[in-house]
Amino acid sequence: MVFASDSRTNAGVDNVSTFKKMAIFEQPGDRVIVIVNSGNLGITQATLSHLKQAIKRDDGSPHLMNVASMYDAAELVGHALRDVGISDGPHLLRSNIDSSANFIIGGQIGRERMRLFLVYSEGNFIEATEDTPYFQIGETKYGKPVIDRIMQSGASMSDAVKCVLVSFDSTMRSNLSVGLPIDLCVYERDALAVTRVRRFGVKDEYMRALSYQWSEGLRRAFQSVPDIEWN
Amino acid sequence: MVFASDSRTNAGVDNVSTFKKMAIFEQPGDRVIVIVNSGNLGITQATLSHLKQAIKRDDGSPHLMNVASMYDAAELVGHALRDVGISDGPHLLRSNIDSSANFIIGGQIGRERMRLFLVYSEGNFIEATEDTPYFQIGETKYGKPVIDRIMQSGASMSDAVKCVLVSFDSTMRSNLSVGLPIDLCVYERDALAVTRVRRFGVKDEYMRALSYQWSEGLRRAFQSVPDIEWN
Repeated sequence: MVFASDSRTNAGVDNVSTFKKMAIFEQPGDRVIVIVNSGNLGITQATLSHLKQAIKRDDGSPHLMNVASMYDAAELVGHALRDVGISDGPHLLRSNIDSSANFIIGGQIGRERMRLFLVYSEGNFIEATEDTPYFQIGETKYGKPVIDRIMQSGASMSDAVKCVLVSFDSTMRSNLSVGLPIDLCVYERDALAVTRVRRFGVKDEYMRALSYQWSEGLRRAFQSVPDIEWN
Repeated sequence: MVFASDSRTNAGVDNVSTFKKMAIFEQPGDRVIVIVNSGNLGITQATLSHLKQAIKRDDGSPHLMNVASMYDAAELVGHALRDVGISDGPHLLRSNIDSSANFIIGGQIGRERMRLFLVYSEGNFIEATEDTPYFQIGETKYGKPVIDRIMQSGASMSDAVKCVLVSFDSTMRSNLSVGLPIDLCVYERDALAVTRVRRFGVKDEYMRALSYQWSEGLRRAFQSVPDIEWN
């Protein structure tokens, strides 16, 4: 499983900041849960705070570090998001501010298989399957064509990593609301510990090489398409 | 100048139809005006009908075939769109139907240079410049990255044709709301007559070759990107 998130947030083009949009909950040998988010930053931060406070309290009620299934974990995210929506939503609405937020949550707990969920703004959620082995949230459209072409169930881990980074590269080229650094987390089946974590900043050499090679490759691909013949 | 439009319209996924979204107004030796549209089909058809009726009436008031400048032509489109919005908009709003519509209008009149405009739903408009030599309307995001990489002022006509078709190909792959046939119109500077018109349907061999070669080229481009090395 590969997770990636950019870190650009904005409240208008004159108010752009950098916030990490990835949270990792890990208990080696027991569970790895990775959560990435998009949408209203106040809402997503509050939702994550609710989830973290429940872990800290550890008062017998379910939280991310004690639930027995990824399904339960996704439900926790949905419920926390709904709680925040109930308390903050009406106030944002009064200022005509979009309070929508989305989460992708994936990982593995104990002997259960790896699972991946997309949690909607409304708190309900769907699970990835073999037919559609990936989810995107946030500014999804620019980077979707390349994922649609490359990603299939059974793709190699290194192809999946490359693909998500190429997808971000395409998006960043066409849309200012997505920007470096990109946080990447790789989880290997049954490892029950994070396999790799890496942050790609502006000066990252791999990201630069990827961006350059992809750009050159696209140029060659474009040249390989035959010119139209009229008649 | 290259214009292209798909022909899929939908009122929900259970109500998909085919309508041409390109209109050509031509008086060889005098003017070529090409209009493509996106958005609410009732609104765009009514707007074009207003424009065509004004030509038919030819009662001394300005219309697309008698105005002296492309700027005036764009203004006519904006005004027609506003008139339709005033008469139909409130009724659509009552049924909570999106009445937004966009037009791209371009071409050449007499000795004026070629000009290209994007008319917003509100009836105001902007003109393309050397810095941004293209406009997109409708489902723009999926197909924008390839245009951003390839299209610059001074690109050849055949590259421009290839680029817009590749852009549509990417969009159609990721989004069901865009579909063949694609109408293409090419206009060469100072020709004052349409240079080429062609419709690309499902069985069009060039479109198939383009789609295949682009797909293969992307695959090679992806393979040319180096795998990540951890550390």
